[in-house]
Amino acid sequence: MRVRFAETDAQGVAHNASYLVWFEVARVEYLRAHAGGYQALRDTGVEALVLESFCRYRTPARFDDLLHVHTRCVDVKGARFRYEYSIVRDDGEAMAEGFTAHACVDAQSLRPTRVPDWLADAIASVESSSASSS
Amino acid sequence: MRVRFAETDAQGVAHNASYLVWFEVARVEYLRAHAGGYQALRDTGVEALVLESFCRYRTPARFDDLLHVHTRCVDVKGARFRYEYSIVRDDGEAMAEGFTAHACVDAQSLRPTRVPDWLADAIASVESSSASSS
Amino acid sequence: MRVRFAETDAQGVAHNASYLVWFEVARVEYLRAHAGGYQALRDTGVEALVLESFCRYRTPARFDDLLHVHTRCVDVKGARFRYEYSIVRDDGEAMAEGFTAHACVDAQSLRPTRVPDWLADAIASVESSSASSS
Amino acid sequence: MRVRFAETDAQGVAHNASYLVWFEVARVEYLRAHAGGYQALRDTGVEALVLESFCRYRTPARFDDLLHVHTRCVDVKGARFRYEYSIVRDDGEAMAEGFTAHACVDAQSLRPTRVPDWLADAIASVESSSASSS
Repeated sequence: MRVRFAETDAQGVAHNASYLVWFEVARVEYLRAHAGGYQALRDTGVEALVLESFCRYRTPARFDDLLHVHTRCVDVKGARFRYEYSIVRDDGEAMAEGFTAHACVDAQSLRPTRVPDWLADAIASVESSSASSS
Repeated sequence: MRVRFAETDAQGVAHNASYLVWFEVARVEYLRAHAGGYQALRDTGVEALVLESFCRYRTPARFDDLLHVHTRCVDVKGARFRYEYSIVRDDGEAMAEGFTAHACVDAQSLRPTRVPDWLADAIASVESSSASSS
Repeated sequence: MRVRFAETDAQGVAHNASYLVWFEVARVEYLRAHAGGYQALRDTGVEALVLESFCRYRTPARFDDLLHVHTRCVDVKGARFRYEYSIVRDDGEAMAEGFTAHACVDAQSLRPTRVPDWLADAIASVESSSASSS
Repeated sequence: MRVRFAETDAQGVAHNASYLVWFEVARVEYLRAHAGGYQALRDTGVEALVLESFCRYRTPARFDDLLHVHTRCVDVKGARFRYEYSIVRDDGEAMAEGFTAHACVDAQSLRPTRVPDWLADAIASVESSSASSS
């Protein structure tokens, strides 16, 4: 994705909160590619809450930089799962990395609920194949 | 309100979309001061949609500028109403002005619904008194 | 572009300020496609300020909606120019339209400066060909 | 500060990236209260970069919630310093906590530069007095 002008700040670089938005865009694309999409999850009455976020900022991203967000889903266990991210500029520069920790909850009661089997299976399938291919 | 660092962009000034957020903050405070709050409106099953927004940017706002948003609610008619805004810096500089046009809708059906009488009355009461006092 | 989850609000639809960000993304892509990019303009010591913005919201955009922003640059005259936008969902639904008015300024003095000839020429070339082809 | 409508998302709660913006607002107020303000720092040709951010989300914040961000500056050493935050709703509910790690850099060269003595002294003075009083 391209760094938007609206995502920069008066230091001339992308604002630190923008990275969490990019992580989210990457999660959404991950679910679209591998598990029928985030809306599919929401349609089953399950919401995924964010429990924690972490980002290490290495090289400031600038307006119009072209960034790739590499994303893995790890540690699926009970209601919990975790994403790890690595943001790389198109010239190969490592820009940032981080993680987010999540819990599935029932959309009505907001009580924790197991990660649905179809999602856990989809994630296991993706991650085992990417592990074996790298 | 103070211009947040996150609201600035790489031009070193507040981003143009930030002004619409400030308009909204001003609407919320207007409803809190005069009509029991925006949440009170939502609690009656009525949502207020934004139909139009307009902003004229006069003087670029900078990080940490202290801004006042003067707000009037006008043209309440049927399901529609309209806010007018004027943003002034604490040194008196006119920074921007604009308006937003709204419609009340039923939160479930999203069909237009009349502005509730209690809200129309509250607005009429505020605006007539401010008109006579200025 | 896809509506990001971060761009939605508690009404379940895209926030009204998000549209101004999408307009900006469209301007940036317009300049990239037709005139060497926005950074090329900034590199010549010219900034483009936003003087006015207007948006009419027709159909609320929802998370993950795929939107196309049709963009025209019109009324290039002196330091001023103007963009017109139309946002259409991938199913053809008209979501919103609007405009932004701009002025070129010297990046140092912030004083108005004529739209550079190369940019005015590029815009004239694009817009005349699109007019004749539609 | 109040949770803005623009800061909520389609889950009906404040978006996870909003918390990093609130942390920043709190840092700015901390510097204003104790060390002449963030702009004072920038005016000396020093920028403070964000190296890391972390947030643990405990209770989802909702539109119009009134939040207090308790802020401490710790571990000032060389060019580095660190803020710790705790966000508490006005009813006493613990909403979130986190930290950000920073480095001072020269605004021109972006090379690390020691935290200015006047700032380090101001922080030491605040934090020692708050430690002894709690």
